[in-house]
Amino acid sequence: MRVREKKHMNTILPLLEKTKSASREVAMLSDSERAQLILDIAQNLEENREKVLEANARDAEKMEDSDPKKDRLLLNEARIQSIASDARNIASLPDPTGKVLLSRTLENGIELQKVTVPLGVVGVIYESRPNVTVDVAVLALRSGNAVILRGGSDAEASNTALVAVIHDVLRSKGIDENAVQLLPTDRAFVQELLEAEKYVDVLIPRGSQNLIQFVREHARIPTIETGAGVCHTFVESSADLEKAKAIVLNAKLQRPSVCNALDTILVSQDIAQSFLPMLVNEFRQAGVEIFADEISFSVLQEAGYSLLQKASESDFGREFLGLKCSIKVVDSFDDALVHIARYSSRHSESIVSENKDLCDRFLREVDVAAVYSNASTRFTDGSVFGLGAEIGISTQKLHARGPFALEALVTQKWILRGDGQVRQ
Amino acid sequence: MRVREKKHMNTILPLLEKTKSASREVAMLSDSERAQLILDIAQNLEENREKVLEANARDAEKMEDSDPKKDRLLLNEARIQSIASDARNIASLPDPTGKVLLSRTLENGIELQKVTVPLGVVGVIYESRPNVTVDVAVLALRSGNAVILRGGSDAEASNTALVAVIHDVLRSKGIDENAVQLLPTDRAFVQELLEAEKYVDVLIPRGSQNLIQFVREHARIPTIETGAGVCHTFVESSADLEKAKAIVLNAKLQRPSVCNALDTILVSQDIAQSFLPMLVNEFRQAGVEIFADEISFSVLQEAGYSLLQKASESDFGREFLGLKCSIKVVDSFDDALVHIARYSSRHSESIVSENKDLCDRFLREVDVAAVYSNASTRFTDGSVFGLGAEIGISTQKLHARGPFALEALVTQKWILRGDGQVRQ
Repeated sequence: MRVREKKHMNTILPLLEKTKSASREVAMLSDSERAQLILDIAQNLEENREKVLEANARDAEKMEDSDPKKDRLLLNEARIQSIASDARNIASLPDPTGKVLLSRTLENGIELQKVTVPLGVVGVIYESRPNVTVDVAVLALRSGNAVILRGGSDAEASNTALVAVIHDVLRSKGIDENAVQLLPTDRAFVQELLEAEKYVDVLIPRGSQNLIQFVREHARIPTIETGAGVCHTFVESSADLEKAKAIVLNAKLQRPSVCNALDTILVSQDIAQSFLPMLVNEFRQAGVEIFADEISFSVLQEAGYSLLQKASESDFGREFLGLKCSIKVVDSFDDALVHIARYSSRHSESIVSENKDLCDRFLREVDVAAVYSNASTRFTDGSVFGLGAEIGISTQKLHARGPFALEALVTQKWILRGDGQVRQ
Repeated sequence: MRVREKKHMNTILPLLEKTKSASREVAMLSDSERAQLILDIAQNLEENREKVLEANARDAEKMEDSDPKKDRLLLNEARIQSIASDARNIASLPDPTGKVLLSRTLENGIELQKVTVPLGVVGVIYESRPNVTVDVAVLALRSGNAVILRGGSDAEASNTALVAVIHDVLRSKGIDENAVQLLPTDRAFVQELLEAEKYVDVLIPRGSQNLIQFVREHARIPTIETGAGVCHTFVESSADLEKAKAIVLNAKLQRPSVCNALDTILVSQDIAQSFLPMLVNEFRQAGVEIFADEISFSVLQEAGYSLLQKASESDFGREFLGLKCSIKVVDSFDDALVHIARYSSRHSESIVSENKDLCDRFLREVDVAAVYSNASTRFTDGSVFGLGAEIGISTQKLHARGPFALEALVTQKWILRGDGQVRQ
């Protein structure tokens, strides 16, 4: 493994330009060449696991044990194995390029086709998880794209070692190693990247809300936002309360730190008294802190729940990412819809109800990436949805919405084959 | 017709909020309700043509006759008829919403569907052509969207009268007229619109490069760029020169003011001497000013062409939008590709060649929205491509590329119907 020096740069534009140029090589690889390239990367990663672990240990030394990011930074044999196995899985996914979306012969004889083609250069800005480096590089290569990686400085040694593993394989196949470009982590270069629309075709921020917000405000390049999940579960009057209990507990407790976990429970007024106390035991045991509106506050207080505060306005529309939630009692179905329209981050929303018409209205009228009836919002995930992989969960409406994978790393092209045709 | 007063505002946010709210009403209209709504708008436009023409005459009075925008501003009976007929055509197009893109039952029994749904609120910023007002409103309504229109101040009276025609029909059907919102033209409000991601789901700038550039730099809302066309026609060594002549003349002369017209001729060195003089008569007759590189300059000078200048660097990658073009002689096929990669605006590019392999390489390797072999670039157009209408020609890669119409005014939604499922 060779590790390139990128010190003392004052611009990253030459790196971006090299990657743009390398992207044309990657786009010309055949489906099977790309798949084989990825299988070889997986194998080379396994063969070089010790060098990668060494580098990771150097990163880890610099981080305090108390830092919550440390767990995300750390690699071990099992995690490397899992990265390699994810890569092999991606190699086996169908090629998203070369699909003929439309094909017709115009009256004048021109043969017109609309086909999917690689985007070109995919840029990803992410934080301390080094597995993203390989994940994203492999997804980009699978779909015929080059990739610009801008990882966090916390993981710099790990990322450098992982990219060296990839470069080894690219070089051995005579492919320009600039096809996978790890940028130096100097903060000054981020703005340069965000404005490099000449060299980068799409930018995907992965990480904290602050990062995504920063990219949204400063990027000139088109982005795919992988935003926050402020997720509601609405327990409607006609709900089967046992189902509702299981769904709410699952959505809040099964993995509280993730974006599709529950943030706010909406409950119809006429069942608040019977439903809310059903949550008390499990919530108490897990230590869930509740921010309750007036009615639910008094119901829960009466039920003897102590981790209880009066909700303020800012507790609605808040993504908790932990053992906290807010509760609001609503007067009607329409009230619930209005609340969700106002506070949802357009990620995942669920209704629990035995009234089929209301479920259908909820599924139709709630304007979010993933909308559920009678199930936990925790299912919003590329693998669960059958995409085979996931780059992220888009909360925007253009190009990709909800969990997205390879199919979002392509664009389309109109191809016209003529024989001298001119326009009248 | 009632014309609303929007004077003395200092923020447009309340208007945008009303439109967001009205968008939920439009989304709930059935396919046939939307189609009928548009047919009624077409009819009401015809019935109110005199009021519209009067308003248009007031706009026209304020513009100098010498202003090149005047022709685009002017309406007459025939143009109004044509707007109404375009609207009827859009009413007849298939509904782009409600398409099931994917449908599967997960192992746990959840029924998963991915369906197309309206974007919500479509914003359009455009300049002096009042027909865009009706075109865009009707396309948005057809696809279940509300629309925010920000037209040019030159056409303010015309746009106000046209929107009043639409509001009449909306009111008569009990639909919130804020579904079609014409913004006041004060410049101060543009920035507010560009940042209103809470209320507007997509922004489409239509007009000059300056406008599009401004939107790209300042918008926080996702945009679909309808960019410039810097279009090359590459006449390769093996070309049938008669075909090449017809194609080049058509691409430059048939309608020089549009984005898919030819800007630069690339010609292989070995045929420059035989091919370029073939253009001389027609180009002279039309008065085409040529910016020629060194070799083509001497060939054309020898052929007695006088509207000739030496090209400077800035004449390549330049969109002429008129009776001008640049010419460059290239050493090889690869040189042509490098030139195009560098100077193309990713709109439309064409090769003229009898070598099928080179045509195929060109079609595959040239990274633009529409790529041609042996045909004029003038065909890049939504109607020609069979889309039935056109909102614009996208030169970006996300969401829509090339000519796009109704199918770009939708997003998708994942719908999950469960029966109490929770994640393990």
